[in-house]
Amino acid sequence: MTATVDVPVPTLVGESVVVEPDAVRILDRRVFPFERTWVTCRSHEDVARAIEEMVTQSLGPLFAAAGGMTLAAREADRLPTARARHEFLTGAGRRLVATRPTNNAIRDVVAELLTVASATVDAGEPPGAAVERAARAVAERHRAGHRRLGEHAAALIPDGATVLTHCWAESYLTETVAAVLRSGKRIDAVCTETRPYLQGARLTAESLAEMGVPTRLVTDGMPAHLMSRGDVTTFVTGADRVTMDGSVVNKIGTLQIAVAAHTFGVPYLALVQAPDPQAPDAAAVELEDRDGREVLQCLGHRTASGSVPGVYPAFDVTPPRFVSVVVTDRGRFAPSDVASYFAA
Amino acid sequence: MTATVDVPVPTLVGESVVVEPDAVRILDRRVFPFERTWVTCRSHEDVARAIEEMVTQSLGPLFAAAGGMTLAAREADRLPTARARHEFLTGAGRRLVATRPTNNAIRDVVAELLTVASATVDAGEPPGAAVERAARAVAERHRAGHRRLGEHAAALIPDGATVLTHCWAESYLTETVAAVLRSGKRIDAVCTETRPYLQGARLTAESLAEMGVPTRLVTDGMPAHLMSRGDVTTFVTGADRVTMDGSVVNKIGTLQIAVAAHTFGVPYLALVQAPDPQAPDAAAVELEDRDGREVLQCLGHRTASGSVPGVYPAFDVTPPRFVSVVVTDRGRFAPSDVASYFAA
Repeated sequence: MTATVDVPVPTLVGESVVVEPDAVRILDRRVFPFERTWVTCRSHEDVARAIEEMVTQSLGPLFAAAGGMTLAAREADRLPTARARHEFLTGAGRRLVATRPTNNAIRDVVAELLTVASATVDAGEPPGAAVERAARAVAERHRAGHRRLGEHAAALIPDGATVLTHCWAESYLTETVAAVLRSGKRIDAVCTETRPYLQGARLTAESLAEMGVPTRLVTDGMPAHLMSRGDVTTFVTGADRVTMDGSVVNKIGTLQIAVAAHTFGVPYLALVQAPDPQAPDAAAVELEDRDGREVLQCLGHRTASGSVPGVYPAFDVTPPRFVSVVVTDRGRFAPSDVASYFAA
Repeated sequence: MTATVDVPVPTLVGESVVVEPDAVRILDRRVFPFERTWVTCRSHEDVARAIEEMVTQSLGPLFAAAGGMTLAAREADRLPTARARHEFLTGAGRRLVATRPTNNAIRDVVAELLTVASATVDAGEPPGAAVERAARAVAERHRAGHRRLGEHAAALIPDGATVLTHCWAESYLTETVAAVLRSGKRIDAVCTETRPYLQGARLTAESLAEMGVPTRLVTDGMPAHLMSRGDVTTFVTGADRVTMDGSVVNKIGTLQIAVAAHTFGVPYLALVQAPDPQAPDAAAVELEDRDGREVLQCLGHRTASGSVPGVYPAFDVTPPRFVSVVVTDRGRFAPSDVASYFAA
């Protein structure tokens, strides 16, 4: 496929995490697109807190964690002994991995960079420069993977499609859309607002509009209605984790739309760079519960009766029978066959 | 069943619409429970505008429309001829019916009161007092019907149940809960926030709490997740209309949860005083579309990208195959058998 169409890279993909000589700057997704402000992280602890507090989410923590390990490795340069460096770096990695347990990207990028750091320290070298190089390479490899994933997904989206998406699937989604547009197909999009943080209303809607895709916003309760009337061609989401039995762990609300898609004959494409070989099934994945008070308010404004508590399970599990295809950087797989990813 | 337990009547049921000598006062549900303010309507036109602007909703418009017809009949008293009175009252009825087309309650209460008004005018009497009496009787009859409906529904809710509800089903729901509590059963509740107007977060949550039911709030995307984990016993909603083939027309989002309930084996009870004999199926029902800008904001605060439009279909249709039981004031019916209501 040749790139004959110039597709804009949306702000959230192009400028989300910037590694500078003395800090990692993270675009604050809690206020985007109303404000475009960056949170400056001077240490891996600052990065960890930013991830916990949702300054960045979706694929953002992958790049932020790589930046956090770079900051930690630079700090380790100033430590006197190999042992002190090892301990500091291991602690930094543990801190970053503990931020959010459901997506496996932080775990994997930290493990990879710790291996590089460890080997460098063992060789008697200061690890800062090596980890920074490795972090840049990891980020590049992921970006290239997302681009391949986008090409594989785009093949399943027909010309004239209306694509419904939930939450913000970042470059999984934007690379898919870019590949669709490059191939000369035209689509429009519907995105759910994705309460309580409104990632769909704020991040996905703004990014798809930046890419020139006609996009409409619905509340989280409307997808089944649109599907029942034949108004949706394809349901597409990212996945925070795909387990080896083809279960899709993703933002709360995904299951409900996937069930509706299955019921009304709308194909559901789950996008993930790779399934997680360490998770045989969803029981092996820690599903993050967040503070229920988030459900009682909207962007800081009270929305609910003061007499009830909120509940905020941040993720749900879509069993493989409701998933049509899992799309990865190595191609498309039936959910029951995702283990073949590692043979491909 | 004997009333051994004293169950409080929630504010929204007890004080929603008050007919006074010179006005109809309507509790403003747009700001409840944050503020408890009433909108004073001096004419049927004021009432019509209040209904259109969502000052009241759910079953509120039934009582408000009865109040509106009372105001119109009083105004007709001052008109000089029978013809002028007929014309004025017919116009008032048309105006009230045109406010919101999907629920048939306004249509039916207006038709009933117009018949009374017409007969009174034909008899050469001023219609005000007769319509006021009839309006009071209609309201009483409905309240008694809702209470019987509640008894019929409560029989299907087991002790210890967790009842999930969507939007605000007013006395359909509260009479069901009251009957459950009177029979000595204990339940807890989960309510969806119901974007964009947050009827669940504000009206249902507050009312169930007033009744002493332990209630938790979730976003509109969470019900399927709770159901997939076995955390919901029964799904209960009101219906704005049930058609003669057993289709349930209700607040947008109902279909999506009903599909999830069906998938995960949770019974779905749709509560409606009576099916609509004038609507053979959902194609005969006008589904109201409201202003899409409502989806771009939450209680007046901007929530979405400025680059996309919102879409706001206010109702959806749940086909009978996803409905377990339709509960009416004359008992419980299989959705395919609701026509038997009129034989009962």
